[in-house]
Amino acid sequence: MGMTMTQKILARHAGLDHVVPGQLVEGKLDLVLGNDITTPVAISEFNKAGLTRVFDREKIALVLDHYTPCKDIKAAQLCAQVREFAQKYEITHFYDVGCMGVEHALLPEKGLTAPGECMIGADSHTCTYGAVGMFSTGVGSTDMAAGMATGLAWFRIPAAVKVTLKGKLQPCVSGKDVILHLIGTIGVDGALYKSLEFAGEGVGSLSMDDRFTIANMAIEAGAKNGIFPVDGRTRAYLEGRVTRPWQAVEADPDAEYEREVVIDLDQLQPTVALPHLPSNTRTVDQVAGTHIDQVVIGSCTNGRLEDLRQAAAVLKGRRVAKGVRCIVIPATQQITLDAMAEGLIQTFIQAGCAVSTPTCGPCLGGHMGVLSDGERAISTTNRNFVGRMGPVTSEIILANPAVAAASAVAGCVADPRTL
Amino acid sequence: MGMTMTQKILARHAGLDHVVPGQLVEGKLDLVLGNDITTPVAISEFNKAGLTRVFDREKIALVLDHYTPCKDIKAAQLCAQVREFAQKYEITHFYDVGCMGVEHALLPEKGLTAPGECMIGADSHTCTYGAVGMFSTGVGSTDMAAGMATGLAWFRIPAAVKVTLKGKLQPCVSGKDVILHLIGTIGVDGALYKSLEFAGEGVGSLSMDDRFTIANMAIEAGAKNGIFPVDGRTRAYLEGRVTRPWQAVEADPDAEYEREVVIDLDQLQPTVALPHLPSNTRTVDQVAGTHIDQVVIGSCTNGRLEDLRQAAAVLKGRRVAKGVRCIVIPATQQITLDAMAEGLIQTFIQAGCAVSTPTCGPCLGGHMGVLSDGERAISTTNRNFVGRMGPVTSEIILANPAVAAASAVAGCVADPRTL
Repeated sequence: MGMTMTQKILARHAGLDHVVPGQLVEGKLDLVLGNDITTPVAISEFNKAGLTRVFDREKIALVLDHYTPCKDIKAAQLCAQVREFAQKYEITHFYDVGCMGVEHALLPEKGLTAPGECMIGADSHTCTYGAVGMFSTGVGSTDMAAGMATGLAWFRIPAAVKVTLKGKLQPCVSGKDVILHLIGTIGVDGALYKSLEFAGEGVGSLSMDDRFTIANMAIEAGAKNGIFPVDGRTRAYLEGRVTRPWQAVEADPDAEYEREVVIDLDQLQPTVALPHLPSNTRTVDQVAGTHIDQVVIGSCTNGRLEDLRQAAAVLKGRRVAKGVRCIVIPATQQITLDAMAEGLIQTFIQAGCAVSTPTCGPCLGGHMGVLSDGERAISTTNRNFVGRMGPVTSEIILANPAVAAASAVAGCVADPRTL
Repeated sequence: MGMTMTQKILARHAGLDHVVPGQLVEGKLDLVLGNDITTPVAISEFNKAGLTRVFDREKIALVLDHYTPCKDIKAAQLCAQVREFAQKYEITHFYDVGCMGVEHALLPEKGLTAPGECMIGADSHTCTYGAVGMFSTGVGSTDMAAGMATGLAWFRIPAAVKVTLKGKLQPCVSGKDVILHLIGTIGVDGALYKSLEFAGEGVGSLSMDDRFTIANMAIEAGAKNGIFPVDGRTRAYLEGRVTRPWQAVEADPDAEYEREVVIDLDQLQPTVALPHLPSNTRTVDQVAGTHIDQVVIGSCTNGRLEDLRQAAAVLKGRRVAKGVRCIVIPATQQITLDAMAEGLIQTFIQAGCAVSTPTCGPCLGGHMGVLSDGERAISTTNRNFVGRMGPVTSEIILANPAVAAASAVAGCVADPRTL
């Protein structure tokens, strides 16, 4: 029996020729990630265990992105703990305020993720990096602590769901719609502890930013990870970013998948997820006109340059509707600079958007756009759980950047194709 | 006995030919201001009093600037209250997220302040507008409520301190140094309930941004207000901004001042205020090398275009020192756009600064850069009271934008002239 991409990567990192779903292996880690919320807990575990060294100071990434620039004293104290740890252990990839970005956008940009590699991160959306053909998954802070000390983690080899993509996305349809459609099809537990293995000729038409968005939300289908094959676009993206050697992994032709889902990209419509689950999907035309109070464009899901381009294309020469706040958050400092060079940030401000410094902010109700009672947001983020962006009476509709921008202009959920 | 500028304006708004210090008058208001912290309290008083109309919906300005984009649910609820009030009473000058700026930078930019006018604001730094030769002062939320309903406020006519300016500022010395030097000279109660009346040939050499900075901090000397004569620079600033008629007011030649302070601008050095009072001043060379953790460049005191230019001139081609966070906050959306057009924002990001959307944020420990225990910031804001930017163990050093930027580069308090 052959292996999937995920299984092959895990086998290789466990020093095994072959693995099967359900098998427990100990894998070598190429990277361990933590942020300002999860790292302090990991540090506490690290210290409680009496540990005094990290396995490799160059293979740990600590990013202060969730509540930064610090929203309150508690947040500042958490950051101070991470800062002190990073200094003590001379962590190479420590990203503080001003040099940082949303972790899952920042790491690939900095060349810290490469095909065939294996990483864990104390953040559920660590699955993002499957976009470059590597294994990455979210863990708890205790696993992060152990990973920082040993460079190892236990994994149960996941079974796989194959997602075969055909055709090509239409205008105003993007990676977000692919993953929302998929989650709408298989449910929020549709890939529980399985890998989502993307395949098919449709992959080639997806930009890297589309792939990051799709892999990012694999966890929202319950998946252990999401992973894309490495192709010319991947190689072009890695060029100049990753200088160390890496080796792409291909699925065996006889790899076993528990299920296959086929998505015809040509047929995909702009898709939204209504409160309170990412699986509660509709095509945008079905819910056009729904009242909104706030729009959020950004996050580890959709805060990349291409996302901003799509939103700016809609907002160019238009104004955010009266009574609606639109908050745009480029995911990294470099994305902000690139967007500024293209005039996108200017377009947002001229349209009446608040443009934030990179932060996870409102996605998790952290800061920079928390909702009030009974308010509704349309957001390019990844979760619309009850109370995720504010009080339990607030609501979130998930959407792609073009839909979010069109809704900002219309003052209600709107289809960018007919704005 | 003649009258000062302040006395004349208050007399005119009270319908009196003459007033004397200590006299109580009821003055007509040209503008009533509130923000997201103070307005909800005013609304509550307004409603408790059974009021059902505002005196003039075009003479009320409500600005959501302190905890926005909302840092938490409580902040969002406060904003929702203001938004609802603004909608109910059709307040013309309601500035929500995306269209706003720090109130005291925003109002003059929008042409809401003009020479000879009289305003109150439920914010202590409402004295800022004296820069354009008008009377403006901070009040409590109850006075704001009464002002919104009646368009009137009671004032006790203030005695005056005359501040005569001579000469011309040297490079890396700006309005912030003038006001810090003054407060250092007369103390934080040196002008208690008096007006600070700026005069002398040195006024002409001060930019409008310098004057806004100086008037902004009049309250830090205990003053009721600070006020500048109207000159060619004032007129040029108002051109295209203020379209309604206005009338400048000049002090009578025989106006009485309780005290005169003379400041020779030529002799002024870059000045900082050490913890924990704005009067605890030193010239920067006296404290160069003092450790800092954070730098804040922005606020109603120093978040204007000229401030950003001064900071960018220092940061251009340089990097924020390792271990230091530098947070830059343009005071309004228009200032952000103008700064972007000049490449200033790009300079900040390239130097490793976090550039925020307009907000009061860290100045009052609100969000967007709150300090941790025992940390020290150098900041272009206006108050360095105990715990103002974070825990009671944190410290703030007040400085001008060039000094703040130089300190960001050096990693400690530094003189921009010798960087």
